[in-house]
Amino acid sequence: MPKGVVRKALEGFRPYVPGEQPPDGEGWIKLNTNESPLPPSPKVLAAIKAAADESLRLYPSATARPAREAIARHFGLDPSRVAVGNGGDELIDLCFTAFAGPGETVAYPMPTYPLFDPLCRIHEARASTHPTETFDELPPSLGADPARLKFIVNPNSPTGALFDAQDVEAVVTASSGVVVVDEAYVDFAPRSAVDLLERHGNVLILRTFSKSYALAGMRVGFALGAPELIEALDSVKDSYNVDRLAVVAAVAAIEDDSYHQALVDEVVRNRGELASALAELGFEVVPSATNFVFARPPKPAFEVATALRERKILVRHYDRDPIAGWIRVTVGTREQHDKLLAALKEIL
Amino acid sequence: MPKGVVRKALEGFRPYVPGEQPPDGEGWIKLNTNESPLPPSPKVLAAIKAAADESLRLYPSATARPAREAIARHFGLDPSRVAVGNGGDELIDLCFTAFAGPGETVAYPMPTYPLFDPLCRIHEARASTHPTETFDELPPSLGADPARLKFIVNPNSPTGALFDAQDVEAVVTASSGVVVVDEAYVDFAPRSAVDLLERHGNVLILRTFSKSYALAGMRVGFALGAPELIEALDSVKDSYNVDRLAVVAAVAAIEDDSYHQALVDEVVRNRGELASALAELGFEVVPSATNFVFARPPKPAFEVATALRERKILVRHYDRDPIAGWIRVTVGTREQHDKLLAALKEIL
Repeated sequence: MPKGVVRKALEGFRPYVPGEQPPDGEGWIKLNTNESPLPPSPKVLAAIKAAADESLRLYPSATARPAREAIARHFGLDPSRVAVGNGGDELIDLCFTAFAGPGETVAYPMPTYPLFDPLCRIHEARASTHPTETFDELPPSLGADPARLKFIVNPNSPTGALFDAQDVEAVVTASSGVVVVDEAYVDFAPRSAVDLLERHGNVLILRTFSKSYALAGMRVGFALGAPELIEALDSVKDSYNVDRLAVVAAVAAIEDDSYHQALVDEVVRNRGELASALAELGFEVVPSATNFVFARPPKPAFEVATALRERKILVRHYDRDPIAGWIRVTVGTREQHDKLLAALKEIL
Repeated sequence: MPKGVVRKALEGFRPYVPGEQPPDGEGWIKLNTNESPLPPSPKVLAAIKAAADESLRLYPSATARPAREAIARHFGLDPSRVAVGNGGDELIDLCFTAFAGPGETVAYPMPTYPLFDPLCRIHEARASTHPTETFDELPPSLGADPARLKFIVNPNSPTGALFDAQDVEAVVTASSGVVVVDEAYVDFAPRSAVDLLERHGNVLILRTFSKSYALAGMRVGFALGAPELIEALDSVKDSYNVDRLAVVAAVAAIEDDSYHQALVDEVVRNRGELASALAELGFEVVPSATNFVFARPPKPAFEVATALRERKILVRHYDRDPIAGWIRVTVGTREQHDKLLAALKEIL
């Protein structure tokens, strides 16, 4: 960031750079940002169109109430245990604002979602990172960390690995601060940590409509937790953080269970096919509990990603330890996989 | 906020409470949150419906590029001078994040938009408030304040008064930090400060689609300023802060100039009628350059607002000096005004 303009603590700050988002309709195969390969439910699109009326002149519900209530019904919780945000990212940012400010410590395993580092910088919080020994094991040191706020992305990104449920609970039990379990990808996994809510008042579960509900374009995420934690998030958010059509989309999406399940099933099936095909091509593949496959190609990751990009196929690659040399491939349709695999056969 | 849960700096924090947003379709006359009494352009609604397709599975442009470009064209600026946010409120919050952090000073006149006080608290910034002598005069002390960040809402809320253009420029000239001129209501005013951009690198102009574009429900605002300031805002925002349909709505709205102008003209006409009628009823009325009228009723404001609420008419009232005893009434349709005035005749 430009010197002298920004506040002192941010001089030289390098923001999180999201995956490339090329303009629509230019024929790219986007396997780089973990979007759904399938469209949203037709009921969601119909609900949005029906709601695109003159009521848009009015502010939305400040609490996104219809979405909060629908989500609460879905999980069998009281609406006071649900917060709604402008995507999961906003809720992560609100967790910093509410629970860990300047000088306070925020802890998380490494590698994980690369948004936490820049948010520590922005909030002037101290990052306490805990390296994982293996991708699927939570670092034992995380529980004992006295941090006011901890994040566990489970299943983890970019590795796709699922941490053990008992290990997650052990961290929650050992922590006096707030533990956020970011379950953005959990619908593709065999189990969730949502039952922790019954036993722990210091845990927040984060979810999103961006992945398994195919609504990345609408920006809606939610948090589940004790009413005190939800109240804290609400008290620091913008007054009207979720727009009217996003609220409508969230309600329609969470109520269309059968579409959601079919979408998840297809992604899980395609994931298995993709993982096998990559392994056959000589990739080292991490077992995935998400909608992407994390794999190490037999050639340098940067070269592979660049060669794919020349063929209008986008994947994410990593060049920093401990995941230097790995790529992350979002699960796509069978047609997209055929093109990806054909391209990889040329490249490798 | 609950003690022990939230970070220490926020214990006992009282958040900004937005105006009441009753559920749709219950027959309320909403004159409390400065929404447009007229609907958005039919072209906007058509554009949203057309865009509610399977592309919602994909993330939006991280920079809301189509909106940025359309806004830039509208103002004859380069797109590098435009930032887009999830409503003007998000842009205000981003100004704190980018320009004034913990321990730094943020200055603004008083009374003004009551969001700045809680944001100072959230960002641990020091609020430096400058009382106005009269509603339409900027406090002369504001320019000399060494604050890193200053806000001038012009026309001001909740007073509706327009500060002198030369006085605003004098503050910008005298300031080494960033001066934000929040022009949320400027389309209803005789003049804007947008020409300051030609002469000053430390000014940001904030605008919104919530008022004169009748899109409060879609949450889109924008900032105009030097590329360095825009870059700073972008670097601290969430990756995808404006959703796909909000981007589409913003583009269609700013391109439909004739609808926008007709809407503004009707609100300005109705504003004159409302101000005259309130004056006739014995209110002290501040000349308004906005889409609302700030007025002091001949009875206690709380009583008046409460009696109106019993009749399903919502206005905003104030009970703290220097504006204790005043109410703010959003300009409505002629039908809404008839009902409001009939109710007031009963009440007074």
